[in-house]
Amino acid sequence: MVPQLWKRVACTALLLAFCVISDARAANDPLPSWNEGPAKTALLEFVHATTDRDSPKFVPSEERIATFDQDGTTWVSHPMYTQVIFCLERVPALVAKKPQLKNDEPFKTVLSGNWDAIGKLSMPELEKILASTLSGMTVDEFSAEVKKWLETAKHPRYQRPYTDLIYQPMLEVLRYFRENGYKTYIATGGGQDFVRVYSERVYGIPPEQVVGTMGGTKYGYDKHGRPILTKEPKLLLNDNFAGKPEGIHLMIGRRPYAAFGNSTGDRQMLEYTTEDEGLRLGMLVLHDDPVREYAYGPAEGLPDTKVGTFTQALYDEAKKKGWFVISMKNDWNRIFSFEK
Amino acid sequence: MVPQLWKRVACTALLLAFCVISDARAANDPLPSWNEGPAKTALLEFVHATTDRDSPKFVPSEERIATFDQDGTTWVSHPMYTQVIFCLERVPALVAKKPQLKNDEPFKTVLSGNWDAIGKLSMPELEKILASTLSGMTVDEFSAEVKKWLETAKHPRYQRPYTDLIYQPMLEVLRYFRENGYKTYIATGGGQDFVRVYSERVYGIPPEQVVGTMGGTKYGYDKHGRPILTKEPKLLLNDNFAGKPEGIHLMIGRRPYAAFGNSTGDRQMLEYTTEDEGLRLGMLVLHDDPVREYAYGPAEGLPDTKVGTFTQALYDEAKKKGWFVISMKNDWNRIFSFEK
Repeated sequence: MVPQLWKRVACTALLLAFCVISDARAANDPLPSWNEGPAKTALLEFVHATTDRDSPKFVPSEERIATFDQDGTTWVSHPMYTQVIFCLERVPALVAKKPQLKNDEPFKTVLSGNWDAIGKLSMPELEKILASTLSGMTVDEFSAEVKKWLETAKHPRYQRPYTDLIYQPMLEVLRYFRENGYKTYIATGGGQDFVRVYSERVYGIPPEQVVGTMGGTKYGYDKHGRPILTKEPKLLLNDNFAGKPEGIHLMIGRRPYAAFGNSTGDRQMLEYTTEDEGLRLGMLVLHDDPVREYAYGPAEGLPDTKVGTFTQALYDEAKKKGWFVISMKNDWNRIFSFEK
Repeated sequence: MVPQLWKRVACTALLLAFCVISDARAANDPLPSWNEGPAKTALLEFVHATTDRDSPKFVPSEERIATFDQDGTTWVSHPMYTQVIFCLERVPALVAKKPQLKNDEPFKTVLSGNWDAIGKLSMPELEKILASTLSGMTVDEFSAEVKKWLETAKHPRYQRPYTDLIYQPMLEVLRYFRENGYKTYIATGGGQDFVRVYSERVYGIPPEQVVGTMGGTKYGYDKHGRPILTKEPKLLLNDNFAGKPEGIHLMIGRRPYAAFGNSTGDRQMLEYTTEDEGLRLGMLVLHDDPVREYAYGPAEGLPDTKVGTFTQALYDEAKKKGWFVISMKNDWNRIFSFEK
């Protein structure tokens, strides 16, 4: 080989080796949608301290687990949880199959289309709707139905598919953590099988890394004798409040090093994550941006027992325990990827 | 740079790139403990056909899931399941804490030390022992106790720690599948938290990839106010028979492409895995080697409902459905890694 050719081979091979090894380290700022401030600094310092071999807080790669709540933490949860909208929109089809439900509550209210009344349904009433619209089909049929719905359904305010309403700064955090050897999980109060349908495409998180509210399935056979799993109206685990650490243990078997949430339903997950040895990170998204998104939280004075609320007590606890409160208004220079 | 130096840089860099990219492909025979025969050929052909981009049976890497039963499939399960021995050995400590159990069955029989009588305990009696010895402690205390026990307990026949009694040919299969982009899972009827204690060290399988019989936990606080999870005597999922595909769906959310078992408890997992589109692999380990291990199976005429038995009906179904039966005697030239 002539020297010139060797030189080119050397350069190409060096480049190849370099690409393979340090692809992840190429970007200058891993969090471009974050403004400089305590939250961004905390993220960068946490990842550096737990992944630098020379750091006293170094965490071996197999133990690097980070869990992310979904509704209100990685995507929009107002005016209503996306999965609840999906379930409400399934009610007419359910009633068509089971006409006896037509005059039963809460189905009657849902069919009325009176959104004020629908918005006032109690938790047990909503659970009744969820249980009846999220069961009775095979797991494959369910996935196909969610996928189809997500392709056409639009958020009432943004007039965009729900999966467009992911927070760009959180996508950057997910990617940044993964590039630093963290295994990222969704830990949601939403249905595990619902979120699994789009988690890989939207978050880069595979179905096996989605921890959510879990329903039972029943093994059986279709009319051709092929094996199927049918979704049952049986709750195995409610992945909210104390159920979050319980679900994390069930699905992962390790305590996370970092956890992200936005409401009282995430309190125990943050507590479980941060109150152990080593460097830990807890963060809560505060919705204080009515212009670009929504504003709700401590000022509303909602009770601690309502899922999805960021109460004053949670805010005070965060300050006391060193959990970072992310201000959407001040910490994020961009909220959605479709914004320029 | 002088040409000679460029040449050396090129060679080194090429080597580096090559090492990074094709480290996994270096070994000549990925299954050296397997004799040539239909089982070994099936393994090699399956992996090649599902991972070669030009193959009509190619499976994208994110969908490559393989599940392995444990007792009798990846380690010795005779004369008794290891976890059952662990539980039986915990009975004296349990009775010391709760003396009222001393005269209650089945605890009385266990305390008698009469192994003939212990061997005849019914399934509900064994379940009573399991429930009471596997709950009441925190998940961390439980892990520590299992770890400690495994360091000293020895198998009655081999006089070695139970974790030495892993089948070397199956370790090679696990590694071979992983090197080809498969995510390997344990799918065991044994306790999920029990197997998680040693799965990473012994199988290279992290805790989050262990699917097993699942018990509930309860979130709470220790006397110092620190968050803990306590193991409850509540069964969430019995990961045997139809429970295996149900557990796989719960924990993974995808249908495996390959499944390995050895008994009627694995039948539904193999069925669920193999009876779908694409190339699928089902394999059953037949224990037919009384000299190096044990011989039990179709000849014994045990009923289909007993866990851990390889019945004639299962054997016939395997032949009919194209599931491969692995003969320990003929297909494996080495059973344990400690054998020369």
